[in-house]
Amino acid sequence: MSALKNDLLLRTLRGEKTERTPVWMMRQAGRYLPEYMVLREKYGFFERCQTPELACEITIQPIDIVGVDAAILFSDILVVPLAMGLEVQLIESKGPVLPDPIKTNADLNRVRVPDVHETLGYVFDAIKLIKQELNGRVPLIGFAGAPWTLLCYMVQGKGSKTFDEAKAFCYTQPELAHQLLQMITDTTIAYLKGQVAAGADTVQIFDSWGGLLSKDDFENISLKYIRQIVAALKDEVPVIVFAKGAWYSLKEMAETGAAGLGIDWCIEPQLARQFAGNNITLQGNFDPAKLLSPIPVIEKEVKKMLQAFGGTRHIANLGHGILPNVPVDHARAFVNTVKEFQVSQK
Amino acid sequence: MSALKNDLLLRTLRGEKTERTPVWMMRQAGRYLPEYMVLREKYGFFERCQTPELACEITIQPIDIVGVDAAILFSDILVVPLAMGLEVQLIESKGPVLPDPIKTNADLNRVRVPDVHETLGYVFDAIKLIKQELNGRVPLIGFAGAPWTLLCYMVQGKGSKTFDEAKAFCYTQPELAHQLLQMITDTTIAYLKGQVAAGADTVQIFDSWGGLLSKDDFENISLKYIRQIVAALKDEVPVIVFAKGAWYSLKEMAETGAAGLGIDWCIEPQLARQFAGNNITLQGNFDPAKLLSPIPVIEKEVKKMLQAFGGTRHIANLGHGILPNVPVDHARAFVNTVKEFQVSQK
Repeated sequence: MSALKNDLLLRTLRGEKTERTPVWMMRQAGRYLPEYMVLREKYGFFERCQTPELACEITIQPIDIVGVDAAILFSDILVVPLAMGLEVQLIESKGPVLPDPIKTNADLNRVRVPDVHETLGYVFDAIKLIKQELNGRVPLIGFAGAPWTLLCYMVQGKGSKTFDEAKAFCYTQPELAHQLLQMITDTTIAYLKGQVAAGADTVQIFDSWGGLLSKDDFENISLKYIRQIVAALKDEVPVIVFAKGAWYSLKEMAETGAAGLGIDWCIEPQLARQFAGNNITLQGNFDPAKLLSPIPVIEKEVKKMLQAFGGTRHIANLGHGILPNVPVDHARAFVNTVKEFQVSQK
Repeated sequence: MSALKNDLLLRTLRGEKTERTPVWMMRQAGRYLPEYMVLREKYGFFERCQTPELACEITIQPIDIVGVDAAILFSDILVVPLAMGLEVQLIESKGPVLPDPIKTNADLNRVRVPDVHETLGYVFDAIKLIKQELNGRVPLIGFAGAPWTLLCYMVQGKGSKTFDEAKAFCYTQPELAHQLLQMITDTTIAYLKGQVAAGADTVQIFDSWGGLLSKDDFENISLKYIRQIVAALKDEVPVIVFAKGAWYSLKEMAETGAAGLGIDWCIEPQLARQFAGNNITLQGNFDPAKLLSPIPVIEKEVKKMLQAFGGTRHIANLGHGILPNVPVDHARAFVNTVKEFQVSQK
């Protein structure tokens, strides 16, 4: 069925026993790669996202350079708010700015559930090109931000440690918040379906700010909408849900029908497995800062992680995006250690 | 033994059954209070910390204005790196800057374990004055930063989402890191003993960045040193440990001999109790952003929290510092709801 030469990731997501653990890294197509920095100097962020040839080249860089087992589409979660009608500025080394954020009912009128083929067609074009260029070497992961994480930016208007304005919006104007979350959800479902139609082999939902919420709020403001997205996609491709920091809802996330759950380094693999149950693949959970350690330390720590996951239903990854100041050799040591490792007493 | 008119906090820390749950708020002497803002306009940050009359006035403001059951010394965790010989700039609304951070062995020579009476005597003077002015109305909480959290600033040189430079310092130069952590620990023990001698009724150790570490790293880089501090202080006063986000080590923190553990809103009270065991007081865990909700929502949510803690061995607090944009009425609603609540089926 699949013309993939390396389908370790997909088989692991389906729960099959594999010859070894697959490995990729969040933000693997990024600033730690000198080859990426060359393109970053020449083109603006949205130019790189919106030009299929550039998005394709960047997406494939880590496959060639670091040897990961999957490609992930080069793009940004904020293309969705952009497609929904908000202005989004991505200023390098300053983080995203949405100069006209949502605060009131009137602001909501400026937002629409768009035709994704009209507004996000460039992503689908990039995916088609990437699939062609990959030529079956590894699977391609599509992705989108979770509705709560997108609401954070759409309401707060910029990055924040606490996203208290976004939370206050949900607490003081819950009807408006749920209306916006549903619009983001509807857009995201169409967007991810479009990615799958264009060739994405699996999709990941990034809830970067899920862990800022209490368990009750996470259910009400975030998971409720993630659940809709998983339900709409899961019969087409395996879905990975990564809600950073939301360890307390791993059980509920596992019950969405997702094939995989991302976890960060603040939860031990055994405990994550206990919370999530045995019927799901776990992805993670190396501390990205640990890639700044000397290579022998990286090798030792990666082996410890792999052993802790036990070698089944595990995709090796970081617990968050790779840091820009990680030497490429260190990233390669991470990947190679996974590839060469055999879990003892498997 | 105590001339305190309200010793609810201390009795709760000792595990005694009390007539109601005590309440205070982290950063209660802070920017949400117009009365504080007046002094903030007139005096620089360190001037406010280092002038006992100002520190006293600010410390007592929330007792008068919001009616909390404890005062917490107005100061900053960065007075310790300052006393150890590092330059510390606290620029309002920009966060702390240490222009000459620790990076190498040579940098460590610039740091000393100081005589705390010489370098931090102003804090002890402030405590004596506060105790006198409080005149037994409520207990006074002293505090210090945890060694790991102070290392974060001393190495990174400024605030950070990930403190990856501080982590990299620990991973690449572990001997140096442990040397620095021990120096901070020794200073902190002397500093907190000085606070107690001056009159602090209890002390809290703030590990604001504990939750950035994996469980193994938290043990090795943070808890090992917190344990020394608790051991040195616990026979003099009850010690509260608050390692934000480090839910995964609640059991180990409870075993330090601390009387109380702070928790944030990302762990449910019942689960925190399960991890920490029954022999310790829990403090928390209201989401500070929820104080931006309408007052009836605050009242409902506070009651839900109190019910979840079950009314024994609980100190009501936020899960992190109060936000500057919280209306004073909302803070008062938080405090009053606790004071008026009776747990059902206690």
